[in-house]
Amino acid sequence: MLSPLPSAKAMVPFVSVENMMRLVHHLGVETVLAELTEAIEADFRRWESFDKTPRVASHSRDGVIELMPTSDGAVYSFKYVNGHPKNIVDGLQTVTAFGLLAEVSTGYPVLLTEMTMLTALRTAATSAMAARHLAPQGAGTMAMIGNGAQAEFQALAMKAVCGINTVRLYDIDPRATEKTARNLAGSGLEIVTCPSAQAAIEGAEIITTCTADKQFATILTDNMVGAGVHINAIGGDCPGKTELHRDILKRSDVFVEYPPQTRIEGEIQQMAPDFPVTELWKVVTGAAAGRRDARQITLFDSVGFAIEDFSALRYVRDRLSGTDFYQNLDMIADPDDPRDLFGMLLRAK
Amino acid sequence: MLSPLPSAKAMVPFVSVENMMRLVHHLGVETVLAELTEAIEADFRRWESFDKTPRVASHSRDGVIELMPTSDGAVYSFKYVNGHPKNIVDGLQTVTAFGLLAEVSTGYPVLLTEMTMLTALRTAATSAMAARHLAPQGAGTMAMIGNGAQAEFQALAMKAVCGINTVRLYDIDPRATEKTARNLAGSGLEIVTCPSAQAAIEGAEIITTCTADKQFATILTDNMVGAGVHINAIGGDCPGKTELHRDILKRSDVFVEYPPQTRIEGEIQQMAPDFPVTELWKVVTGAAAGRRDARQITLFDSVGFAIEDFSALRYVRDRLSGTDFYQNLDMIADPDDPRDLFGMLLRAK
Repeated sequence: MLSPLPSAKAMVPFVSVENMMRLVHHLGVETVLAELTEAIEADFRRWESFDKTPRVASHSRDGVIELMPTSDGAVYSFKYVNGHPKNIVDGLQTVTAFGLLAEVSTGYPVLLTEMTMLTALRTAATSAMAARHLAPQGAGTMAMIGNGAQAEFQALAMKAVCGINTVRLYDIDPRATEKTARNLAGSGLEIVTCPSAQAAIEGAEIITTCTADKQFATILTDNMVGAGVHINAIGGDCPGKTELHRDILKRSDVFVEYPPQTRIEGEIQQMAPDFPVTELWKVVTGAAAGRRDARQITLFDSVGFAIEDFSALRYVRDRLSGTDFYQNLDMIADPDDPRDLFGMLLRAK
Repeated sequence: MLSPLPSAKAMVPFVSVENMMRLVHHLGVETVLAELTEAIEADFRRWESFDKTPRVASHSRDGVIELMPTSDGAVYSFKYVNGHPKNIVDGLQTVTAFGLLAEVSTGYPVLLTEMTMLTALRTAATSAMAARHLAPQGAGTMAMIGNGAQAEFQALAMKAVCGINTVRLYDIDPRATEKTARNLAGSGLEIVTCPSAQAAIEGAEIITTCTADKQFATILTDNMVGAGVHINAIGGDCPGKTELHRDILKRSDVFVEYPPQTRIEGEIQQMAPDFPVTELWKVVTGAAAGRRDARQITLFDSVGFAIEDFSALRYVRDRLSGTDFYQNLDMIADPDDPRDLFGMLLRAK
């Protein structure tokens, strides 16, 4: 199934940032978000066929570097991703990423791609997939608290997949809100900029929090959250970094990707190790209930999981076929006689 | 210390297989092996300053795909490496690899490189470093059992670092031995091809085993190994894959890289969990004894550890300066305003 691309074994197709952006525009941003949502949901439906492991994190004072591997037995993927909140001060991305697909049967890589852009897309698609199952019927308005790099992707995914028509923006930095409003101006969404988080969540059926501080923060307090909403909590995604007051968690039904990882990294790191959660894949397959009634508060405690990257990488590889949105990298030494690696070196002289 | 290369943050220098071979010839193979040995030994000397974790392995019927991360607090590295013994049947490498260096302070990658060739070089350099501390004084002859992709690198590293002058070759497949003899013809080493493992080890002070079967094999049996030799056991490097009869281990002083990994992957997987071993880094710093007398059998149970890759990646990056043996990859999305990732996408349209 990974066949159509370059077959020369030594060559690995590489998708640069520029080519990823070309691919996204070629297909259309909302189409990509909608198709990614389907790709991720398809893999959540076969969740049990994946090797799962919490990401391998290397923490430092300034941030974290993580490797996120998974495999379905036929295809292997991993993502390299960092999280450095203070990068923004130096004009750098807080999150950058790249990823790789390989054939399990040979171990040979078959795709290398930038994943800063792709992670933003898949994170939004995962949120939309969760909201499709958990948000109240007919939700039309999303509050978007934290207007950083993820904000527009979230808004467009919720529009493309869940049919929202209004986004209410708030950020502690008004320039971030201006930026987001400007970028979404031609999107068909009604954009409302708000002076506070409290104002932003007014009338919103979906509340998305996506702020970047590496600390225990309280973007939402309990009194702010009314009955019946769906909270899409993106920013609490590493140890010591949360966004919601714990009292909100106690009133909510909490849905997670992979509990062993979320209990370390997500909002529920504030709670006891046996705090009840529902695995999102079980909602997707129908094995567990999603939203049960109109007054229930549902909370997707999203930290990002390797299977979502796997889906995104597979999707990109499929969509690359027949395009020229990649270059071939001479990344794998592949001598004619595999035992003659040294002879290959000798002959290169 | 990672400064001289391209500073454009979005660009990651990439060393292809072809450029790696150009770099090696530019410097000279034996020079690279000798300098790599020094680089690895320097990092073994500060072993305690590294984050260490057993590699993250994804096992399948046909082989294994592994990620090997480490960090010294300033620089992070990881290697992707597969091990698929049956690949050779399909004309593929059993081991292919690539690796990455990143700045811990920002999480930004600063080097991506092929590591199939580089792993062969660093594995041989690590063997030579161990042999320099453990082989008998004045060792002049090495037996090389298993004449696959690693054989020539091992021979040249032992020549460059330990001063051996003779290599005695044996492989179950005579064509592998012919290939190795041919490749080493101009090296200055005396090459003796042997009809059996038993014949190969005759008179050898250093015995290197490097065979590829993924199974419990017995390349050496106890009666074959005389007093005073140094055994450099390379091929036992994943669960279920060993080369030596366990009776040899009982007679030897065993030296390892990182015990938690070697007890799973190395020759000592055959022994009890408390089988005594000495960590090689302690020999390098003088904290533990290496060879104590002329009759002792020393055994380096080598499985390869992430710090060796770290050393090799750092070495390559240093040696790239002032050369054109790399290309810049547009791998990191780096918008002018880091929060404006979506604006970057919009403007690319």
